[in-house]
Amino acid sequence: MRPEAELLCTGSELVSSKVNLYSPLFAARLLGLGVTLRGERSLRDDLPLITRSIREAMASCPLVITCGGLGPTFDDLTRRAAARALGLRLVSSPDCAAELRRRYSLEKLPPNMADQAVVLEGARTISNRNGTAFGQVIRRGRRMLVLLPGPLREWEPMFGDGLAREISSFFGLKSGTVLSARLKAAGLKEVQAERLVRPVLRSFAGTDFTILAGADEVEFSFTVRGRTPALAERRLAAVKKAARRALGGAVYSETGEGRHQALGRLLKDRGATLALAESCTGGLASKLMTDEAGSSDFFLGGVTSYSNAAKVRLLGVSPALVRRRGAVSAECAAAMARGARRAFGSDYAGAVTGIAGPAGGTPEKPVGTVFFGICGPRGVSSHKASFRGTRDFIRLSSANRLFDLLGKIIE
Amino acid sequence: MRPEAELLCTGSELVSSKVNLYSPLFAARLLGLGVTLRGERSLRDDLPLITRSIREAMASCPLVITCGGLGPTFDDLTRRAAARALGLRLVSSPDCAAELRRRYSLEKLPPNMADQAVVLEGARTISNRNGTAFGQVIRRGRRMLVLLPGPLREWEPMFGDGLAREISSFFGLKSGTVLSARLKAAGLKEVQAERLVRPVLRSFAGTDFTILAGADEVEFSFTVRGRTPALAERRLAAVKKAARRALGGAVYSETGEGRHQALGRLLKDRGATLALAESCTGGLASKLMTDEAGSSDFFLGGVTSYSNAAKVRLLGVSPALVRRRGAVSAECAAAMARGARRAFGSDYAGAVTGIAGPAGGTPEKPVGTVFFGICGPRGVSSHKASFRGTRDFIRLSSANRLFDLLGKIIE
Repeated sequence: MRPEAELLCTGSELVSSKVNLYSPLFAARLLGLGVTLRGERSLRDDLPLITRSIREAMASCPLVITCGGLGPTFDDLTRRAAARALGLRLVSSPDCAAELRRRYSLEKLPPNMADQAVVLEGARTISNRNGTAFGQVIRRGRRMLVLLPGPLREWEPMFGDGLAREISSFFGLKSGTVLSARLKAAGLKEVQAERLVRPVLRSFAGTDFTILAGADEVEFSFTVRGRTPALAERRLAAVKKAARRALGGAVYSETGEGRHQALGRLLKDRGATLALAESCTGGLASKLMTDEAGSSDFFLGGVTSYSNAAKVRLLGVSPALVRRRGAVSAECAAAMARGARRAFGSDYAGAVTGIAGPAGGTPEKPVGTVFFGICGPRGVSSHKASFRGTRDFIRLSSANRLFDLLGKIIE
Repeated sequence: MRPEAELLCTGSELVSSKVNLYSPLFAARLLGLGVTLRGERSLRDDLPLITRSIREAMASCPLVITCGGLGPTFDDLTRRAAARALGLRLVSSPDCAAELRRRYSLEKLPPNMADQAVVLEGARTISNRNGTAFGQVIRRGRRMLVLLPGPLREWEPMFGDGLAREISSFFGLKSGTVLSARLKAAGLKEVQAERLVRPVLRSFAGTDFTILAGADEVEFSFTVRGRTPALAERRLAAVKKAARRALGGAVYSETGEGRHQALGRLLKDRGATLALAESCTGGLASKLMTDEAGSSDFFLGGVTSYSNAAKVRLLGVSPALVRRRGAVSAECAAAMARGARRAFGSDYAGAVTGIAGPAGGTPEKPVGTVFFGICGPRGVSSHKASFRGTRDFIRLSSANRLFDLLGKIIE
């Protein structure tokens, strides 16, 4: 039996208006157990459709996981659909009812909550730390059906609370024999990254890897298998080392953190402070630096100088320099960084000015041309990059590159 | 035959690493024709899986659309899967081959491109303005299968190039008899919005509506049906008017634009300029104001004053005020706005300071407490709001509220 799973997400909003973010999250969770997610369905709140989909998925896939539709309201249909698909009754579980009474200190459950104690006959239930819907696991011969609640904060802890163990034992997978890791590498395009890493990985049979392209960066995910946990560990370490060598210093994270987070960590470690001056990124770099709570420890602030007058008045860039070199120039970027460091009194300052497009390019400075200024206790430097893509992509690539340049100076 | 469709998206990356954005896009396209998208599947590049999925979907749904997997590389499997699922042969189309030769001015197609002329026997093809893969439409009795290429810029124009007409005629839907509209309303929560609008819509039988919650705003989508286009138009106008009345002035857009876009449009219309001073939003409001190209016409810049010193040095807020009232106060917000207007020399300025969390709240100023300062030619005002949610949600809600307050002053 191949360790494969299908995911069924229910909720009309997933089909018509919201983007469904769950497939990669479940895929990563399952991959960590050695199970491949082979497909995902998003389904409207439609009882016959959900019933048929559960039946179809279970006909061909050993593990089927549903997500959503376990609440007490009229459009929460998953329990009824699963009961129909499997020909099982829904019964009120005294254990679940008792747990809900205990948790909410109630003598008697109100009708809404009593509904939450209704489960598929014979299901093993998983408690929900952050809600009232129980997870449910049903085994039918060589098939397993798992019902999970929709919100991430409700289903995610259930993996740790027994579900991961149950899936591993269902497939006979020894825990720790499938391991995965990820590396994020800065300044690379997908094709470059693939060209560097694929030949190296050929020598490690049974290693899966995927490359996800980002803005001025790529993320690799590796999965290795070993007969024992120790062998898997050793193989993972070897693969990581080989990939790092192939990428020659571009790797900046093994935890999935972004470059703004890596820079924030570095600043915190050094007890150093940062200020920013932004033109084409329009505040995006400051926004990213303040995404995490606690960033006021190292981030003093920034100036979005979207007009030439702002560059002159707030950052002290000389009007003559702007006139002679233009606002999009290495000289202006350097002057902006110097001005930001002075204005905020920070240890380090970074500046970015460029042409994010789609209009505004010239033959000498086409769309995607971006200059960076980096200023620290030892002086100021400037850098240039050329990005290709949409306005959003160029702006995010610019912010990421700025963080990278700052990190290199601070280290 | 109910006008319903299912979407099948192929590509291993959609299951394991990328978020699939297509379901809402297709749902909107189809809804405009009067067709409901009832479910979407994302499938790994696995021939038996894709074959089975096409077969399953066609067994129960009149219209099945596949997206992706039409390229010439080894993991592009959709044509083969469709041929297997329907028991049809794949044949080389002389017309398609001729079109490719003509378009790329080739005497003879290279093998890769010759593969692109291979289609399902009996398929009607749709030319691809932005790529080499043809769209294909196959009718089998009361079922229709449509194969589309994966990239948005390739499949999207195909709707206008005949596909929309073909789907309408397949379902016998008269064009213009199903209409939809959307309204965005500021400052409302999902439950409030539903309470206001649902009773009103009861009197319009056959009107579907969905509510999508955003940050300090909601978006309504309405769909109405009429026997003739004129009746549908009249009904849509009546529904919109009734909903607008129920929402009492909260509606700010009928086009789906965001509040930063509405504010940008307003500033452009008035020939007025704006500057921002941000604390808890950390640059997000400036980033949003510069999302659109051309924003330098009205946006002069902003200061992210993430430290008290920055508020004093760059915005001229008095140290005594910060000491007495705190950086999170109505007085500080007003002083920040005044300082930003002076520093940038803009017509209007907006400021925001608050507690985005998750830490930093106090009993008097819990997480989510946010103050706004608005400064214009007629003076300065301050405002307060309380948001509940994650750090990201509080920050985006704060930026949206700031845009709203600015818009009200400028109007």
